Order: sequence, then structure tokens, then C-alpha cells
Amino acid sequence: MTGAPTSRVLLGPGPSNVHRRVLRALSRPLVGHLDPIFLELMQEIQDLLRFAFRTANRLTIPISGTGSAGMEACLVNLIEPGDKVIVGVNGVFGTRMVDIVGRCRGVAIPVEAPWGEIVEPESLLEALRANPDARAVCVIHAETSTGAWQPLQELGEALSQTETLFVVDAVTSLAGAPLYVDDWHIDACYSGTQKCLSCPPGLAPLTLSEKAMAILRRRSSAVQSWYLDLSMIEKYWGEERAYHHTAPVSMNFALAEALRLVREEGLEARWTRHRRHHEALREGLAAMGLPLAAQVGRQLWMLNSVGIPDGIDDADVRSFLLRDYNLEIGGGLGPLQGSVWRIGLMGESSTKANVLLVLTALERALKARGYDFPAGAGAGIEAAAASLATG
Amino acid sequence: MTGAPTSRVLLGPGPSNVHRRVLRALSRPLVGHLDPIFLELMQEIQDLLRFAFRTANRLTIPISGTGSAGMEACLVNLIEPGDKVIVGVNGVFGTRMVDIVGRCRGVAIPVEAPWGEIVEPESLLEALRANPDARAVCVIHAETSTGAWQPLQELGEALSQTETLFVVDAVTSLAGAPLYVDDWHIDACYSGTQKCLSCPPGLAPLTLSEKAMAILRRRSSAVQSWYLDLSMIEKYWGEERAYHHTAPVSMNFALAEALRLVREEGLEARWTRHRRHHEALREGLAAMGLPLAAQVGRQLWMLNSVGIPDGIDDADVRSFLLRDYNLEIGGGLGPLQGSVWRIGLMGESSTKANVLLVLTALERALKARGYDFPAGAGAGIEAAAASLATG
Repeated sequence: MTGAPTSRVLLGPGPSNVHRRVLRALSRPLVGHLDPIFLELMQEIQDLLRFAFRTANRLTIPISGTGSAGMEACLVNLIEPGDKVIVGVNGVFGTRMVDIVGRCRGVAIPVEAPWGEIVEPESLLEALRANPDARAVCVIHAETSTGAWQPLQELGEALSQTETLFVVDAVTSLAGAPLYVDDWHIDACYSGTQKCLSCPPGLAPLTLSEKAMAILRRRSSAVQSWYLDLSMIEKYWGEERAYHHTAPVSMNFALAEALRLVREEGLEARWTRHRRHHEALREGLAAMGLPLAAQVGRQLWMLNSVGIPDGIDDADVRSFLLRDYNLEIGGGLGPLQGSVWRIGLMGESSTKANVLLVLTALERALKARGYDFPAGAGAGIEAAAASLATG
Repeated sequence: MTGAPTSRVLLGPGPSNVHRRVLRALSRPLVGHLDPIFLELMQEIQDLLRFAFRTANRLTIPISGTGSAGMEACLVNLIEPGDKVIVGVNGVFGTRMVDIVGRCRGVAIPVEAPWGEIVEPESLLEALRANPDARAVCVIHAETSTGAWQPLQELGEALSQTETLFVVDAVTSLAGAPLYVDDWHIDACYSGTQKCLSCPPGLAPLTLSEKAMAILRRRSSAVQSWYLDLSMIEKYWGEERAYHHTAPVSMNFALAEALRLVREEGLEARWTRHRRHHEALREGLAAMGLPLAAQVGRQLWMLNSVGIPDGIDDADVRSFLLRDYNLEIGGGLGPLQGSVWRIGLMGESSTKANVLLVLTALERALKARGYDFPAGAGAGIEAAAASLATG
């Protein structure tokens, strides 16, 4: 840990690479968490998060924990014992939601789909018709464990006609793919800072609609988590500035700067950048005989799951990339461990150079391990370059 | 928020000022949270925390949230529904513990003392004799809301003879005052990073004894918080490195550096520094007619509560100090709002220069507001300087 810090190219499932302006904001001398300077920053962060989430929701704040704390915050605040909660389960994060619903003493109703595929909206609506009193329908917008891209709009429209809340995990999608919290009638949405926002991990942006706030206010039992109790946290971030906990000051400096960078680029431009680099990577990998593992037509732009060819050792290749290229890609989670790689192109990490770098490095790694390239070595780079030229 | 960053002298209840080496560590380019570099850092942080807590406990880690998340982590993991929990209540943080025990569906048995005084160990032991089946006795080592310093040793010795756990909030005391987790038989202890460790807020160091781990392993119900479930978190920080959440990488860089600074100074030397500067401040304030508000003989070294003189407006003076001197001191919390100031001398902020600065600035503020100095203006500085010369 001494000596010159190692610079990694971070193409895993997060953290992604962080802009030097964000690193500089992190190293800014501290101010108190009730200092007028910080109170002004809190206001700015809320405005910038509303911009990123495409929402006018009053309660739009960063939770003082990582993305998983955002998931838990949504669920513990909105679920009371006995509440039915329909959860789309097609990977690690839907599975985690079911776990948390149980810890809230809610009744989880999982709607399953194979890992790598989406959960059909119609299946979720069918579960809702069977359980019209369900408190919420929860889905993972971008299933980081598989690369599947869950459609939201149709579900949101259907749920907006009901008393049931629409809860969306946007940990990996926020600022990397279209997300319209208000237009799509999303009632509770949370994210993480270390994915397409390209801020270090440590905060969880979260927004609640008025429909969700009404549920929170009507609770008959106390929220089981004091730390994540949004009825208290909203007073800390609101006009009252009522002390709750001490906000992570430096992380908020960083988040503000990361969000300013998003605004400067523009959300649509940022989404387009993520799309183009994904398409180039997909074409390059396909030309190498490595098609993406997620459902065709439902593949995320920021997280690409790739099947590992027979005879190639997962950890061996990832160690090689890290050691020889300072390049990180992710391994598989749960049942996919050892059978897929996960290549992230998130936020600052989504660049043309990184697409070509990861294809080149993978080619070197596979070639050295005797992999038989179906279209010959070099085809991947050519295909990606062609995609970049036309995209 | 644009332009040159404002540098504050942070003499409130935290955050304290952060060493430039820690700020530099924060701005280090990121690595992945499963990168070998980060795994090595996790090991180093655990070793350094064991050093700071004076413990050999295996489970000694930073929780990915602020000090309050540390409190919640201890309680949700160790308490099951129906468990009796004896809590010393003499300020904001004991009150908060009672609140959290209720959210865990435990039965809180508060043992109260006036704010500013300690909770007599004998009163807590009496409550234990009346409730010998209590799961835990919980106290706040350094009650940041009042400045009272709770003695621990006698309680720890008594509890070590029982099945009851000893839970200690060391948010404000760790690395600023003597704390011996193992020698004092403390079973669960947590802290915050932004007090005497002089790291930004955002992590909560925590350690559990084997006696506490046995309780955790014997639970018949799931821990109600997924995010704070130590049975999973220990696998992430342990040999398995099993993915749980994404650790706040940059904050952990900072914590490691802050802990290295503690080790370089030495714990005893650091405690002595906190004592000397507290004594000088106390003498200076007394000479200005501003005695400390907490119980005599039980006053914390790192957090000094001072009664606000009649006719002096709390917020007016604090705004003046911030505006004219870039100097932050804290206001009172809860029932003490408006009636006390809280002057922190924590970590990097505990310096001779800061003692003299805060006395000088307070003198200017009070003089301009017509305060009648009992020993004449200048007596405070003289008394503090004399204390520093002899201390």
C-alpha cells in the first residue's frame, strides 16, 4: 500500500473509474455537517439527483450507505409485517430483495425467470391480479449479476392504476440508461454511486413518490431500522435540518461533483455513449466467438455478461488481466460463478479506448491459453472498430 | 461551492479536522473492492482497528455506514424479540439506544441519570440484579451530547461473571481516551471515524467478543437488517471474501491512513495530548466564568460542554465564530439546545493552537455582546497558557 498508487482500468461490475474532478472533491478539507456550506451542498445534491432520476419527488436524497442500504431503506420503510410483496427474481439482486422482505416480516411472492432473462411484465401483473392487495411490485432494472435489462414502462403504467407501489432497483442503470421515475410511475427507486455515476461506493441515491410517502406516513408500526428511517432522514435533509446522523461529508462532496459531470454531459448524451460502447463491445466479442450471455434484445449497455469458453479458467484469466494490464473485469456471482465474466462499461469507464483495450487484452489472454478464434485473431478488434465507426 | 474551498477549524462534536495524508488517501484512484490490493488493505485495517480498540477479537471491522449504523449493527445482531436490554440513559445517545432496542422488539430497561452526569455503575448493576436474564447492558462511553465520561471497568468486570453482554458506544472516545476492549471485558464496541480518529464520517469501526459472537450464532431468528447482518459481513471481511455489499473503497483508504497516523503517534501519547488540551481549555473557560457543564471529575477530554451565559444568544455567537474565524463549535442537542455550547478537541483538532484560538475567539464574541468577564478580559488565555506550560 506504500509507494505509487496503482491505477486500474475498472471494467468490472463497479466501482467504475472516477473522474479526477471527483477525486479532487473527495480530498477537499472538511466542513461540519451542519455548516451553511454543507447545507447548501445538500440542497444542490437533491436538485441534481432529481435531474438524474427525472423526478420532481421532494424526498430525493443520498442514503448514507452503499446501494444495498438503498434497497433495504426502500423495503423497511414501505413494508409492514404481513404485507405481500411481489418480487421479480432473475438474479442475485431480486433474490436479495426476497430475503429482505422476509426480514421485514412481509410475505414475498417471487416471480421467477431464468438468470439472464427478464421477468416478463405480464407474469408480474398476473401475480398482482392474484394478489391485488400486494403492497408493492419490485424489480431490478439492471440485473448486475446477469446483464439483463428489465423493461419498466408497461409495469409502471399498470401499477399507477392501483394501490400497489412500484419499487425499482436502479443501482446499475442510473445515468447509464434511460430511466424516467415520474413518467414511468415509479414510486420508490434507489441507486448506488459507484456504477454509472462514477463516484466511489458509499452512498445510495433514493427517491420516493408521494404515493410511497403516503404509505410511509400511514404506517402503524415503527420502521425497524433507526438508521434508515426515512421519516427521520427527511427532516435532516429537509427544511428542519433536524440532526439524525452525521452525513458522510467527503462522500457528499464527491457525489455532488459526479452529478455535476453528469449534468454537464447531459443525460441523453451519456445514455448514447453507454449504448455505443456496449454495441462495439458486443460486436467485438461476437466476432471472437464470445456472445453475450443475457437474453437477446434485453442486454444492458453498462454490464455485459460473457460466457467463458470451455477449457478456459475464469480466475486465471482475470488475474492475468489485472496483473499484466491493470485491467479489472468481474467474475460471475452465485450459480454463474466460473461460467461468465462480467464486463462493465459504466460511467467514466465507458470509453472507446476501454472497449478496444478489453478486447485486445482478452484476445492476448485467450490466445496464450490455446483458445481457437472462430474468425481468426484480430477479428474482434476489427468488428468493434467497425461498430464504433458507424455507431 | 465553486472557487477556493473554505478551510474550517472544526471544534464541534465531529467531524474533526482531517490530516492532509488522510485527504490524500481519499483522493487515491480507485481499485475494485475484490482487488488483491483492497483485500490486503482490509487485512491491514482490521489489524489497525484491533490495535486501536486494544482487542484480539477476530470480528473487528468497519461497518459501511456512520457511527449510528455501528450502534444499530450491534443491537440488531445481538438482540432478539423479547430480550431484555439494560440501557444507561443520560443524553441523546442512550435515548437513541432505547429507541433501537424497541425497534428490535427487545424490552429496554432504561437506567436514567440527569444529562451531564454519568450513570452510576451501581445503578446499572442493580438493574441487572433485578433482571439477571438481561441480554445486555449498554452504555455510552463518551456522551457527546453532554460531555459526560462513563466509567467502564467496574461494569465490565461484573458483567464478565454473567451471561449478560457488555455493549459500549465508543463513537467519540476511541483513540481520544483510554479504552481497553479486552481488559475491560467489553463484548460489543463501536465507534465513528469522524471524531478522535480524524477521518471523514462514513464508517463505523466495530468489534465483537467471542461471547457476543456465540450469541449471534445461537440466534433463532434472522437479523432484521440484511445490510448490517454481521454473520454475512464477517464472511466478506474474513477468509471467504464472500460478496455481500461493495465496501466504500475510498473511505477505507482514508480510514487506513487515519489509523496509521494513530499508530505512529501511539495511543497513550494521543490520549495524553487530548487530556492536556482539555485541561487547558477547561482552565481557560473557568477563568472566563464559563465552567464546564458536565459532572466534575467525569468530564470528557475530547468534548467540552459549556453553559451559555445569560443574555448571550447561542446561534448568534456560533455564526460569528464561523463567519469571522472559520471556526466551528457545536450547539446543544435536545433539551440542551440553546443552553450549552459543545467544544470538541478531537483527533487532529486537539492542538495547543486551537485551544488558544477558541478561547480568543469566544472572548471577542462575548466582549462584543457585553459579557462581564469576572476576572477581566484576557484571563482565559492566561489561565490556558499557564496550564499548557505546566501540563
